[in-house]
Amino acid sequence: MKAKNVEIDDLNEASPWWSRACLRVDETIAAQARARQAQLTKPPGSLGRLEDAAVRLAALQRTPQPSLQRVWISVFAADHGVAAEGVSAFPQAVTGEMLRNFAGGGAAIAVLARSLGASLDVVNLGTVNDPGPIKGVHRAIVAASTANFCEAAAMSAAQLEAALAAGAASVRAARDAGAQLFVGGEMGIANTTAAAALACALLQRAPAELTGAGTGLDAAGVARKIAVIERALALHAVAGSDHERLRRLGGFEIAALAGAYVACAQSGIPVLVDGFICTVAALAAQRLNPGCGEWLLYAHRSHERGHAAVLDALHAQPLLDLGLRLGEGSGAAVAVPLLRLACDLHNGMATFAQAGVSGATA
Amino acid sequence: MKAKNVEIDDLNEASPWWSRACLRVDETIAAQARARQAQLTKPPGSLGRLEDAAVRLAALQRTPQPSLQRVWISVFAADHGVAAEGVSAFPQAVTGEMLRNFAGGGAAIAVLARSLGASLDVVNLGTVNDPGPIKGVHRAIVAASTANFCEAAAMSAAQLEAALAAGAASVRAARDAGAQLFVGGEMGIANTTAAAALACALLQRAPAELTGAGTGLDAAGVARKIAVIERALALHAVAGSDHERLRRLGGFEIAALAGAYVACAQSGIPVLVDGFICTVAALAAQRLNPGCGEWLLYAHRSHERGHAAVLDALHAQPLLDLGLRLGEGSGAAVAVPLLRLACDLHNGMATFAQAGVSGATA
Repeated sequence: MKAKNVEIDDLNEASPWWSRACLRVDETIAAQARARQAQLTKPPGSLGRLEDAAVRLAALQRTPQPSLQRVWISVFAADHGVAAEGVSAFPQAVTGEMLRNFAGGGAAIAVLARSLGASLDVVNLGTVNDPGPIKGVHRAIVAASTANFCEAAAMSAAQLEAALAAGAASVRAARDAGAQLFVGGEMGIANTTAAAALACALLQRAPAELTGAGTGLDAAGVARKIAVIERALALHAVAGSDHERLRRLGGFEIAALAGAYVACAQSGIPVLVDGFICTVAALAAQRLNPGCGEWLLYAHRSHERGHAAVLDALHAQPLLDLGLRLGEGSGAAVAVPLLRLACDLHNGMATFAQAGVSGATA
Repeated sequence: MKAKNVEIDDLNEASPWWSRACLRVDETIAAQARARQAQLTKPPGSLGRLEDAAVRLAALQRTPQPSLQRVWISVFAADHGVAAEGVSAFPQAVTGEMLRNFAGGGAAIAVLARSLGASLDVVNLGTVNDPGPIKGVHRAIVAASTANFCEAAAMSAAQLEAALAAGAASVRAARDAGAQLFVGGEMGIANTTAAAALACALLQRAPAELTGAGTGLDAAGVARKIAVIERALALHAVAGSDHERLRRLGGFEIAALAGAYVACAQSGIPVLVDGFICTVAALAAQRLNPGCGEWLLYAHRSHERGHAAVLDALHAQPLLDLGLRLGEGSGAAVAVPLLRLACDLHNGMATFAQAGVSGATA
């Protein structure tokens, strides 16, 4: 499915689109769903977090019978100027090369989308070695790359707005396709550097606390990456708002994810957040629009250093902890079947009365 | 599918069937699978435990392309004499009542089996309120219940052999159906009491360390349950072998699970172990035949107190930690999609060479 036109008509208004109110969770349906869980043929609470997930999805989808048959995955790819500082174990060319692999079905997220029967929306926001038009890749080019944020702001104001709007455009396409869950993914060499820098700025943390090995740096590489982030934070300490921090330290795909998360909350589509980079985007989204937090479920605890701290800051409790650190939305995709089974159990189990099974005596 | 005749022809031999050699894992295929993982288009190791799972399944299934399309779930139900001590939050009638719910599709494991497209084998090993013949329930009655192990051994030697053999019979049916993974489940009011007592005896631990709330005891109930287990351990301290400890403190379904796990290892079928009771059965299986351990994967860390300690004793690292404590095999069923996706990624992802993607430089 192809994404609709980007919504940038609000660019010059006093109140930008991403600050508009998010939808509210339906607490009445949440209470009904919780009551149903208590009637199902199992000891109360014995399905643990699967019960919580079903109740929350019911409340978010505003239906007593939540369903995740139609899952939408948008993968946003973009390059980063800070790659010039040697902060990744892989060459920058990989970002563009992977676009073909996403569309061709060989990348992890492509395999997972196929297995899940999910829609896969691949968005090229700008890569240094632009592969040109590829069937299955949606072009929403902001620029070939962000600027190196050790030297200048990563994005201009217009670039940030375009990236945010690209995320919203994918959500509009997802909504038009009837998506019941939105999964965002990312690809961009050096984007754990951007995510760590942004998280440090948003959470007032030291780079050594949130900086990890990314795709596979050794200890010396991580030390270099920390020094790079320290330089960037010093340069951009003048930023006066979180929106400005996102512009100066983010990336096109990180901004697109943040825009998508806000748009999902405004459109009533639950989100399953992937790993470190997506969680930093979720943090940024909540700084742009605090009301979106209710719509965000967290899939997994990444192996990437820094993820745990950002999750803690968001009071997020991910479903999985499998040592994943690939990105692309892969960790969120892996968690989709758990949520589907949570819905199946909620909708399909018999009550004690239906099954003629005795209840608890103690 | 109907289970074949129970293999009890070795009952009177010096070397019982369950002590026969288990198959060995194919280390050559494991090495090949590990090498393939390193060539797939992702940072090395970035799929974490999903990589390990795919490699292990390849080695167990002896194929470079592991698959879990055909999953077999056997749920063993049985009653426990120790229920007379008031150790459960639910009345004993529930065991028999739930047989109808398993077969009727309303129980959690029935919903999950349907969602997974798995074969569901429900085995009635003996219930106090025997529901009689039910379509979809396989009768392998050992007795209406074990004896109350506070007063006598839970099982006679012949009952233990029959229960072990019932597990093996389900595995034979699974093998005949081409099962690529075996999931065992259990149902039996008071069976966390039996499992905790057996685990204490096998691991030389105090009841207070391994005894939990089961289906929902309050603090006073747990204290009573601990006292019951202390009495049982004192009575059966004379047991001279782990086989004898299983006979004196186990249950029909626990023994059936142990027999099934050994039979899987002898037949070359990987096992996904469910929660506390199944893990205690896995511990018993390894005491009966240490070679079976390689065939056992662990699905989840249950909320039931005691599970963590037994997992640690087995050096087991479960995939999930979702606060589940239902049993029936439900936690293992929930983990099946993770293993399926691990296989899909292993088999379906492109290599760097195939996709024309650059490798790491650092």
